[in-house]
Amino acid sequence: MKIWILGGDGFCGWPTALYLSDKGHDVTIIDNLIRRQTDVLLGVESLTPIKTITERLKIWKKVSGKKINYLNFNLAEEYQLLLDTLIKEKPDVIVHFAEQRSAPYSMKSASTKRYTVNNNISVTHNLLVALVESKLDSHIVHLGTMGVYGYGWSGKTAIPEGYLKVVLDNDQEKTKRDILYPANPGSVYHMTKTMDQLMFAFYAKNDGLRITDLHQGIVWGTQTQQTILDDGLVNRFDYDGDYGTVLNRFLMQAAIEYPLTVHGTGGQTRAFINIQDTVRCIELAILNPPTKYDRPVVFNQVTETFKVIDLAKLVSKLTGVKINLLENPRNEARENELIVENKKFMSLGLNPITLNDGLMTEIEKIAKKYSYRVDKNKILATSLWKSK
Amino acid sequence: MKIWILGGDGFCGWPTALYLSDKGHDVTIIDNLIRRQTDVLLGVESLTPIKTITERLKIWKKVSGKKINYLNFNLAEEYQLLLDTLIKEKPDVIVHFAEQRSAPYSMKSASTKRYTVNNNISVTHNLLVALVESKLDSHIVHLGTMGVYGYGWSGKTAIPEGYLKVVLDNDQEKTKRDILYPANPGSVYHMTKTMDQLMFAFYAKNDGLRITDLHQGIVWGTQTQQTILDDGLVNRFDYDGDYGTVLNRFLMQAAIEYPLTVHGTGGQTRAFINIQDTVRCIELAILNPPTKYDRPVVFNQVTETFKVIDLAKLVSKLTGVKINLLENPRNEARENELIVENKKFMSLGLNPITLNDGLMTEIEKIAKKYSYRVDKNKILATSLWKSK
Repeated sequence: MKIWILGGDGFCGWPTALYLSDKGHDVTIIDNLIRRQTDVLLGVESLTPIKTITERLKIWKKVSGKKINYLNFNLAEEYQLLLDTLIKEKPDVIVHFAEQRSAPYSMKSASTKRYTVNNNISVTHNLLVALVESKLDSHIVHLGTMGVYGYGWSGKTAIPEGYLKVVLDNDQEKTKRDILYPANPGSVYHMTKTMDQLMFAFYAKNDGLRITDLHQGIVWGTQTQQTILDDGLVNRFDYDGDYGTVLNRFLMQAAIEYPLTVHGTGGQTRAFINIQDTVRCIELAILNPPTKYDRPVVFNQVTETFKVIDLAKLVSKLTGVKINLLENPRNEARENELIVENKKFMSLGLNPITLNDGLMTEIEKIAKKYSYRVDKNKILATSLWKSK
Repeated sequence: MKIWILGGDGFCGWPTALYLSDKGHDVTIIDNLIRRQTDVLLGVESLTPIKTITERLKIWKKVSGKKINYLNFNLAEEYQLLLDTLIKEKPDVIVHFAEQRSAPYSMKSASTKRYTVNNNISVTHNLLVALVESKLDSHIVHLGTMGVYGYGWSGKTAIPEGYLKVVLDNDQEKTKRDILYPANPGSVYHMTKTMDQLMFAFYAKNDGLRITDLHQGIVWGTQTQQTILDDGLVNRFDYDGDYGTVLNRFLMQAAIEYPLTVHGTGGQTRAFINIQDTVRCIELAILNPPTKYDRPVVFNQVTETFKVIDLAKLVSKLTGVKINLLENPRNEARENELIVENKKFMSLGLNPITLNDGLMTEIEKIAKKYSYRVDKNKILATSLWKSK
């Protein structure tokens, strides 16, 4: 298949591009490299020394014999170029990772709030409008987030995959109705993904666009079967207060014997998935598209749930590094339960990598190996959800 | 109170500005006059000859002795100017009409779809971010639309004011939960208002912004007690296929004895409100603000429901003009029932103007009076919801 990866230079995009190329698909990456520019502005770097996109692609060609095409343009602003390229290339599938994806970054300032909304909404909407205008039937596979559901309701009822069956209190006939799970985002970033959902629902209904939305948990791990083939293919590993997800931060902290920083009590339960499983899920979603005029298909792209404190304890047990409880900069519940349905991917044959299995490899092969590159000043989160 | 009216030169904004000024409030209009520019681009004009904003305000000063301030800037793009002006002026209330509000226009082309999303989302989000950054506690009163609810569900259950009580099908304990009414927008324009709702919910929850969202029905009528005080204060009356709402189109068609154009069977039930009641509702909303950290307060700003065909019959009976059934360019249900709760405004003392009472005045005093200005070529809707 001809597959576009929007945001294909990023943490999820890069290993997805390699995986799908390895599987024999004709892959094109479109990326404006804003993620690398943001690192420059924040004064941080991936713990792993990632090559430029041009070098990466050259190495992949050498290692695999396969060519990945690369286009650099701004999907939020260059609509006509997007449309022209669509009409010329006619991709079968468009995997859409091209959004600002850090919650703390999205809460940092007026400017980062506005950038996150303008960029994420414009990229998604431009893509939808261009598909309608081009009259193509490309399948959109979008990376959503578990954060669209929020953590407001009791952990006794499982979070279903996208849609919820309810009975209206004022309905005499007690008809069961299927509704989109009510959005309850915890940051401006998560809010943009809830807004994406409304755009997807409208364009699927009005124009018959075929859309899959993957509500992904927190990704951990760095390497995949493709990125380990050469040091120059290594994936990015973010550990800074803005872009570093919680588990990667713990791993890096453990590697340099820096106390594991837990925000609040650590009683927040979150859903997780390994990066290698992420790329497999993307492929499964590609192979199982909705049909025209279906509502958007939603998968919960998660394999395990953990309380943050239990993760910290697990890493602490494996490495002997202590835990440090800090004030939580986020505006969120101190404690929550979380049950997540993930039957769809499991029934399609996903065989997950568990934290218990993969954690030590991550610490040895990534965190320790590259620990000489760490900047300890960048570890702590500095974005506040509310001004004091 | 010090009140800002964003979009205060428009069809709802102008009479609201006059009404609140008349009541003794200190009113400032912020408007970039894009609505007038769109008329130029579409080659249409208000049936009523509206004066420039400067002339209008001069006449209002002469007639009432009251001054309305006017600022021209683009709220979607000039964030810093918005923030600086907020900090300087410290409005108590910000009435937000500054959105592209035509469903057919929003469906006209890729360009109008993109403009509608970019403008509407950016204006709303800039306002929210600027309020957080300024640390002001101004009450936002936003004009939403009944169209956020859509017409998907049976007419047997009433549409509540914003929030719905439901029981989750998989909840053993059958807890009743309050959720935002599931969005089901019928156009890109309506979609932007459902996205606004998610932004309002987030900023109310995270930052304690005080927000009222008014889900307004289709507005009919032209004049208010203030706009009739001088011919130069007359409100705009749109009858073209894009901006003319259904009843105003019928009235104008009746005045020039042009067959009343009904799309589809006319079995679509819609909710209506007179423009004079709109301005009263805005005042009631201003006088009844939410408190900090309340969820956004939603009012259904409607007073009557009618099937479109029954409206056409009513106008036909009063004037003798025939009805012409045309193919429906919209992608919507042919027939629907609609029951809408509007207890909140009624309990606050709203005493509505009914269609049966006000219709003939509209025909005589507006449609017939200005019928010499009509351009018959602009009456029909040309925007298609789906390409053929």
